[in-house]
Amino acid sequence: MKSLTEHLWFEVPDRRGYINITGTIEGLVRKSGVKEGLCLVNAMHITAAVFINDNEGGLLHDYEVWLEKLAPHEPTTQYHHNQTGEDNADAHLKRQIMGREVVVAITNGKLDFGPWWQTTQTSARQDYWGVGLRRGITLVASMTQ
Amino acid sequence: MKSLTEHLWFEVPDRRGYINITGTIEGLVRKSGVKEGLCLVNAMHITAAVFINDNEGGLLHDYEVWLEKLAPHEPTTQYHHNQTGEDNADAHLKRQIMGREVVVAITNGKLDFGPWWQTTQTSARQDYWGVGLRRGITLVASMTQ
Amino acid sequence: MKSLTEHLWFEVPDRRGYINITGTIEGLVRKSGVKEGLCLVNAMHITAAVFINDNEGGLLHDYEVWLEKLAPHEPTTQYHHNQTGEDNADAHLKRQIMGREVVVAITNGKLDFGPWWQTTQTSARQDYWGVGLRRGITLVASMTQ
Repeated sequence: MKSLTEHLWFEVPDRRGYINITGTIEGLVRKSGVKEGLCLVNAMHITAAVFINDNEGGLLHDYEVWLEKLAPHEPTTQYHHNQTGEDNADAHLKRQIMGREVVVAITNGKLDFGPWWQTTQTSARQDYWGVGLRRGITLVASMTQ
Repeated sequence: MKSLTEHLWFEVPDRRGYINITGTIEGLVRKSGVKEGLCLVNAMHITAAVFINDNEGGLLHDYEVWLEKLAPHEPTTQYHHNQTGEDNADAHLKRQIMGREVVVAITNGKLDFGPWWQTTQTSARQDYWGVGLRRGITLVASMTQ
Repeated sequence: MKSLTEHLWFEVPDRRGYINITGTIEGLVRKSGVKEGLCLVNAMHITAAVFINDNEGGLLHDYEVWLEKLAPHEPTTQYHHNQTGEDNADAHLKRQIMGREVVVAITNGKLDFGPWWQTTQTSARQDYWGVGLRRGITLVASMTQ
């Protein structure tokens, strides 16, 4: 049995930000030595998310607009959670939409994104994204075989 | 290879309810003997959810309001699914928002929630939550190494 | 350690479609020889989803109406992503609601859906569903022990 778990720390410049972590995770898969297994990446913070979608600036903008429509930040008084002195209730809701974690198969020592990925090598367009609904994010990345 | 899978049964007092299952899952991880691996917890019922978020009463209230806004129960006749004699179509939709499952890394025999969790010990604020969109819930908890 | 990963290709007749893949996945679990472990099924395409919910036509209709309400296709010009020449920004959003992946425990060589599933055998009502927000879908199915 091989396994490797690491905690990763990222900072985003603003209240929200998107970080492409594909390269980082690929490096950890190599380091782990896992050939056939599973790779879990999850946000530790409950106002951060990890998801796989398109590395395209227009879409990231669309996510921002959409998330704000589904779970508006303002007025902050609409949320009971904010009576605790925080103002981030909306971030807890947005994270349910974007997702806490992704699990990816490891095949022959590499993240398995399927044949289309491998043949067209458009890796820039299908990536892990960590979305920070806060300024700092810790991710847990774990590979097991 | 070590593994343990158990089925857990919970009852909620009303049509919807939130249950903190962190302690139960921690006990199963110990029982499994898994040192490095993955822990899957999923709802068996398709109108129940498992998620990790904040153990804070105001936020749970906010989830209730939010879920009802995104997928209202009334009028029940708006959903074709309810023509089957059920009235829970909204619960099937709400579960898509809250999520069917969580996967957590097991590191050194414990659920790995990251360094922040470990140092501040605010375990009460980041928990598994099973949300019942029905009165009884079965969860599947599985640990593998 | 046993493992099996396969890439599965499906075509849907229209822009969106729902495919019941339970039988296919059950066959792969048998083929893998995994007795105790995890089964991951994820969509490769970033505008496709995999989820487990109810195999009931009315509900699938309700999902269509609901997803269109939460993330409307029209007007396509409302999304910056569509300035790339695509018109599928809404599908990227819808997929966040429906989910990229499911992970299911394998117990005693079978997908573990819990005791209720096993005793009432209503397998037709709780299924993997691949939802295509495009005409062709590749899924990654991976079993590990």
